[in-house]
Amino acid sequence: MKEIMAFIRLNMVNPTKHALAKVGYPSFTCSKAVGRGKRPLAAEAIQVIMENAGSVPADEIGEHLSEGIRLVPRRSFSLIVDDEQVALAVKTIIQVNQTGTPGDGRLFVMPVAEGYNIRTGERQVKELDR
Amino acid sequence: MKEIMAFIRLNMVNPTKHALAKVGYPSFTCSKAVGRGKRPLAAEAIQVIMENAGSVPADEIGEHLSEGIRLVPRRSFSLIVDDEQVALAVKTIIQVNQTGTPGDGRLFVMPVAEGYNIRTGERQVKELDR
Amino acid sequence: MKEIMAFIRLNMVNPTKHALAKVGYPSFTCSKAVGRGKRPLAAEAIQVIMENAGSVPADEIGEHLSEGIRLVPRRSFSLIVDDEQVALAVKTIIQVNQTGTPGDGRLFVMPVAEGYNIRTGERQVKELDR
Repeated sequence: MKEIMAFIRLNMVNPTKHALAKVGYPSFTCSKAVGRGKRPLAAEAIQVIMENAGSVPADEIGEHLSEGIRLVPRRSFSLIVDDEQVALAVKTIIQVNQTGTPGDGRLFVMPVAEGYNIRTGERQVKELDR
Repeated sequence: MKEIMAFIRLNMVNPTKHALAKVGYPSFTCSKAVGRGKRPLAAEAIQVIMENAGSVPADEIGEHLSEGIRLVPRRSFSLIVDDEQVALAVKTIIQVNQTGTPGDGRLFVMPVAEGYNIRTGERQVKELDR
Repeated sequence: MKEIMAFIRLNMVNPTKHALAKVGYPSFTCSKAVGRGKRPLAAEAIQVIMENAGSVPADEIGEHLSEGIRLVPRRSFSLIVDDEQVALAVKTIIQVNQTGTPGDGRLFVMPVAEGYNIRTGERQVKELDR
């Protein structure tokens, strides 16, 4: 079992979840984050962020832009899959999120030791997320 | 050392922290998330979410409900324990969060390589969270 | 490859990111969290939280303080580095965040199985975060 964690653009949450549902992984968790990649933000990049921000409140963006080193609002998108499902899920997320411009984000695969369905109390290994 | 990560209902954060404190694990971290399990949300399920949401602002819920595939507001609840404490912590969280209805959430156990107390700078392995 | 996850004070995000950038790690992700350490909060501690909260909206703090067991607003600060970079990154974060008073936070190092640059689709191991 592995956790796949992708830090993606705000406007990519919907396309990502639809693409994953299509290939059979409807379960995921998503949360707000801010991040910063390797390069300092140019004025044009800030413009792109503002345009991509979509429904994000202007003051949320402003907060990050005014913090010295510029922080970009991101969504952290996480799902847990069986080991043999990792390759397809990773490929799907990368394909959907690839715009070819800096800021497409990064994706990490982390080991998971155990998984449980809280409602049933059952330890899930193989059936999880199918 | 392991990280226990549970994605639970909003109104379960308080009962969960009280139950964990009672069995000796007072330290945890909690953050906002939205998630989606395997099944699409029925109208009744949305009603249940609205009722369970409690103190969550109506517009936060609305934001998630209007996103195409419905996203459920969740709390991600995380604590770090020693290996031999995992079983009790997992059992405690599952017991408190089990309502028997879909949406009770899921729990994962992730490996942790090292832990540090920032104030003292000490690497903590055995004494952590006790 | 490892994920370094630090739960730090709100007003430490900026000093932490500047210190990490200086030693060569400009990439990170940051998100909101609330947490609670081992000891119950005294009235003075609550005062300190209010003072340290800085730009956090008063109602966000109020929400956490009124939840029975007091929850402290925190920032979860995460970066991914190669194995041989872990020691320097950990040392840097601890040095910057050490005030010597309770509440400096904790830091964990988690294993990462794989890392990808979404824009290029390349699997990154060695070049990541440099």
